[in-house]
Amino acid sequence: MKHFSKEDISKMSSIYRLNMINSCTGYKSANLIGTKSKKGVTNLAVFNSVIHLGSNPPLIGFILRPTTVARHTYENLKDTGGFTVNHIHYSQIEDAHHTSAKYQENTSEFDQTKLEEEYKIKIEVPFVKNSPVQLACSYVNEYHIEENDTLMIVGQIEHIFIQNEILEKDGWLQLEKGGIVAINGLEGYALPKHLDRFPYARPNLKQK
Amino acid sequence: MKHFSKEDISKMSSIYRLNMINSCTGYKSANLIGTKSKKGVTNLAVFNSVIHLGSNPPLIGFILRPTTVARHTYENLKDTGGFTVNHIHYSQIEDAHHTSAKYQENTSEFDQTKLEEEYKIKIEVPFVKNSPVQLACSYVNEYHIEENDTLMIVGQIEHIFIQNEILEKDGWLQLEKGGIVAINGLEGYALPKHLDRFPYARPNLKQK
Repeated sequence: MKHFSKEDISKMSSIYRLNMINSCTGYKSANLIGTKSKKGVTNLAVFNSVIHLGSNPPLIGFILRPTTVARHTYENLKDTGGFTVNHIHYSQIEDAHHTSAKYQENTSEFDQTKLEEEYKIKIEVPFVKNSPVQLACSYVNEYHIEENDTLMIVGQIEHIFIQNEILEKDGWLQLEKGGIVAINGLEGYALPKHLDRFPYARPNLKQK
Repeated sequence: MKHFSKEDISKMSSIYRLNMINSCTGYKSANLIGTKSKKGVTNLAVFNSVIHLGSNPPLIGFILRPTTVARHTYENLKDTGGFTVNHIHYSQIEDAHHTSAKYQENTSEFDQTKLEEEYKIKIEVPFVKNSPVQLACSYVNEYHIEENDTLMIVGQIEHIFIQNEILEKDGWLQLEKGGIVAINGLEGYALPKHLDRFPYARPNLKQK
């Protein structure tokens, strides 16, 4: 195996380090977060940091760097109180990735890609059409990560939309059936194939 | 599409809600976190919440529920200041999942599964043998998520070990080459296949 110490990492070129550190913790969720500004300009940005925080109440989190392209997402969700989380289908990866380009405040990523806005049940922020799983969320709180000046946004799920074939009888979403991708690092996209699903693990049912 | 509102979610049975809310944000990283207690008992637990926080310094985060099986992980990493993050190979998923069973404090998950401890370069906490990517991390900080009484642990990467074939020339880890899995919900395991990798996105290079 190759070995890199903290000292090795500190001496890497910034691009090499960015590539390695972003990919060394494993696959990440691939989501497009949709928002709308006070002026009505829609915004869409790809995120690989959406995590599950809890089921009851249904809470999610994601990480923002206020100084990057995600700034519009932050300003909009603070202004309007809401955002959508849209899973990325494998046919959408090139356009999804293009939302990470730094556009001006008055430019919508929906106008710069083939991704289309979709509106449902009086929710003002845009969903991404043909996204296999779509969440509408409200802003709940934010935590400042002082070690590197990032923010963890906490949101509550208000609505879930799921393509019929993805939903199993017990509430589990079989994501492969939706053609949903995962992210490898900052800009690699991968399509997972379901291997197995295990029951709730209990001690001693399985021995070495 | 099927639609579930906040009210629908609140009325679900707890298992149905757990399944849906855990899987509705997309694929997650699949990691085994290794620790050791003050008494020298090793601990290993599967996590799907490890996220990237920043590259310089190299920081990661993960979510803990102090009241669950992860309690041993928390106590140990606070006591010793360190933990390992080990990617899960597809041949290890059954044993990896079994680490979520609630064992007593004096029982090591390494003794209850086929997973084997590995020690390197004077690091006292155990790695998982044959894990394709292994990180040694130090405890940096924790943030209490008051909305549901969880903790986000912040750790700094001290060492990275990578199987040779995974590492690309520019520092990016091609996780498929390591047979590394992703997690779908709480207990579904999937094997991603690489689709594409895109360059840094810039405005206007691509038009609708």
